[in-house]
Amino acid sequence: MTEHVEGKLLIIGGAEDKKNECKILKRFVQESGGRESRITVLTAATEYPLQVGTEYHSLFLELGAQEVQVLDVLDRTQANRQGIERELEKSTGVFFTGGDQLRITGLLGGTLLGRMLEQLYEQGVIIAGTSAGASVMSDTMIVGGEAGTAKKDTLTMAPGLGLLRSVVIDQHFAQRGRIGRLLSAISQNPYVLGVGIDEDTAILVQSDARFSVVGTNTVTVVDASSSTTTNVSETTPGQALVLSPILMHVLSDGYGFDLKRRVSLL
Amino acid sequence: MTEHVEGKLLIIGGAEDKKNECKILKRFVQESGGRESRITVLTAATEYPLQVGTEYHSLFLELGAQEVQVLDVLDRTQANRQGIERELEKSTGVFFTGGDQLRITGLLGGTLLGRMLEQLYEQGVIIAGTSAGASVMSDTMIVGGEAGTAKKDTLTMAPGLGLLRSVVIDQHFAQRGRIGRLLSAISQNPYVLGVGIDEDTAILVQSDARFSVVGTNTVTVVDASSSTTTNVSETTPGQALVLSPILMHVLSDGYGFDLKRRVSLL
Repeated sequence: MTEHVEGKLLIIGGAEDKKNECKILKRFVQESGGRESRITVLTAATEYPLQVGTEYHSLFLELGAQEVQVLDVLDRTQANRQGIERELEKSTGVFFTGGDQLRITGLLGGTLLGRMLEQLYEQGVIIAGTSAGASVMSDTMIVGGEAGTAKKDTLTMAPGLGLLRSVVIDQHFAQRGRIGRLLSAISQNPYVLGVGIDEDTAILVQSDARFSVVGTNTVTVVDASSSTTTNVSETTPGQALVLSPILMHVLSDGYGFDLKRRVSLL
Repeated sequence: MTEHVEGKLLIIGGAEDKKNECKILKRFVQESGGRESRITVLTAATEYPLQVGTEYHSLFLELGAQEVQVLDVLDRTQANRQGIERELEKSTGVFFTGGDQLRITGLLGGTLLGRMLEQLYEQGVIIAGTSAGASVMSDTMIVGGEAGTAKKDTLTMAPGLGLLRSVVIDQHFAQRGRIGRLLSAISQNPYVLGVGIDEDTAILVQSDARFSVVGTNTVTVVDASSSTTTNVSETTPGQALVLSPILMHVLSDGYGFDLKRRVSLL
């Protein structure tokens, strides 16, 4: 098990700026090829695909994309429809909207569309996602859990898309007070690195497993791999957690992190 | 500058249980001498001294204290009144209620009452405080600052009572999402240890500078003393923070920490 990165990911903590500088979305268009980009917006996560799809469609065109298509799949049959590969194959950037992360994996996992996405990713096409679309990037994802104190077994997890391995992502991180639930997640397997991404903030992950931070707030990395003291195997569910020591890194725009060496970069 | 502890402190993150097991308040009565205890409740922090004072008065008697007095000071003249030392000198435990931490230091700092408290503390009398009464324990205290993302210079600090040196306390910690502001505080001087105490949770600090956790939630210690990467001296106020690496320890009931060696204890 190692931090496995094939291609390029832009993982956004939700509520990215869509009105002013649009720094994150602009970066996505650039990384997709700028004036040559052909972007596919996947609205699987949201219950309002038309509204959300239209918004990103206009935005990406305004930000200089050459072509934008919105692809909505309502069920697995649609995600398996003949020819869907051809609808995607020319994409130079794929964008997952927010909504419910289980809708993404439930609709796409194991389908033709799902496999096509993996292929694009392996070819170096940038895959971006915001909010729920951020959570799905990892092999195991957080799907629910309360804010507040770190407690044992009070969060729910599920298999994600697996584009980023040995990492758990949480979004709307500082805004919703989610450090406790991210710590609960990594306490279950301290090998896994926790990455909490604030609103209007993103990590741009490169194929060398290094990421840089883009946006106005912070990214918090928690690494419990060398922790010696924990009560995870002893306590009953719902009990307050013990985990010590944990290495934490708080990073903001322009700073970076090496997911393999687990150190921050200037 | 070293973690300086003279006597015994019970520092409570606010909202301690007053209806059921009353684990923390019971522990305070025990540490004050149990059936032989003479407890003084200081209501300086609150704007409702009668109500709050009466509540703790009844509670400590119910929990087995021998004697409980409530001491309210409305202004510095009262905190300097002749004979106030005698009202306090037989106390075996002192308890600061919640409210506004600046009321405590503003009313008591440099007065006869303030000096008497220090004396009691040096004699080994336990000094307890909840919420605002917890924040005042350290030499520099947090008096304000928003929840959410760790940002530079967006919190306000003031000199505390100085019973615990080189530490900054924050209370209602996980419940109010305060990790960001605690990190902002320690980024200003990474030598200072940050201790975030959740509601219905306390640390019992002994004169050897070790503490143990009492209560239902967690205590989070953040130690940035070995951080190598930060933007504190570069960024403009309000900008998102960079601080890496930080050592973090999440502890719950029965676990402990050595403030001098900065390691958790089983």
